[in-house]
Amino acid sequence: MLEIERKFAVKSTNFLANAKESYKITQGYLNTDKNRTVRVRTKGNKGFITVKGISSADGLSRFEWEKEIDIKDAEALLLLCEDFVIDKTRYLVPFGAVVFEVDVFDGANKGLIIAEVELQTTDQQFEKPDWLGDELTGDERFYNAYLSNVPFTSWND
Amino acid sequence: MLEIERKFAVKSTNFLANAKESYKITQGYLNTDKNRTVRVRTKGNKGFITVKGISSADGLSRFEWEKEIDIKDAEALLLLCEDFVIDKTRYLVPFGAVVFEVDVFDGANKGLIIAEVELQTTDQQFEKPDWLGDELTGDERFYNAYLSNVPFTSWND
Repeated sequence: MLEIERKFAVKSTNFLANAKESYKITQGYLNTDKNRTVRVRTKGNKGFITVKGISSADGLSRFEWEKEIDIKDAEALLLLCEDFVIDKTRYLVPFGAVVFEVDVFDGANKGLIIAEVELQTTDQQFEKPDWLGDELTGDERFYNAYLSNVPFTSWND
Repeated sequence: MLEIERKFAVKSTNFLANAKESYKITQGYLNTDKNRTVRVRTKGNKGFITVKGISSADGLSRFEWEKEIDIKDAEALLLLCEDFVIDKTRYLVPFGAVVFEVDVFDGANKGLIIAEVELQTTDQQFEKPDWLGDELTGDERFYNAYLSNVPFTSWND
């Protein structure tokens, strides 16, 4: 299926007041090539393997295929992954008609907070909460695959 | 799990007389890195995704994880794969206490025939049929992942 998603910086932790749910995510990459990204993830007590294709020119949509797998299998596969495994806590924050997924990164990406919203169409409008910052959609530095090779704490600017 | 396997050249097509079963295999790679090979395969009307780790020093054993997936999903994932997709017909050939899997390659690897036998232990003995040729175990040129990047018909010797 095609996934349509927009990504934003987060300006403050005000989103926490409206978070309905949160869970830990650990994920690594069996391939960080953006043409055929292969991600292994544990989320709570579940495991997943996910394949993503190249993004559309506008950066908005991307082929995505996901399969739930045994968490023990996911843990074994994480040991084969490239470079840094990503640890983050995901908060689900409903706002207006959409639900933002806010990822608070830990470990080698500590300090980074990113919000994503999944849309039904590329031109779908939605209300923006006050804690939402600049749009990062299509900026490859904020791809989790990139962050697993070049983590946020190693960036200089 | 750990897979223990030995691989051999095939000297003649005499194995065909003892083949009990055969089926078409199409497979491609989402990663050909030998540390984290990710294979997508269709076999008859089934689909599979398989992850393999680095081989042991003797080339005999390798971490392998496989999950059956919907054939439509496998076909969609094959479109994302690197370079050449591999087409082959696999013959199952019982001989003595073991079963040889003999792969007759087609397409960009036409002309290549390889036999593999899966073993329970690295020192397991088995009878060798007269059509079995030189051992190729551990020779990375005969990895299917390598053949998908540098197919047999492109080799010069």
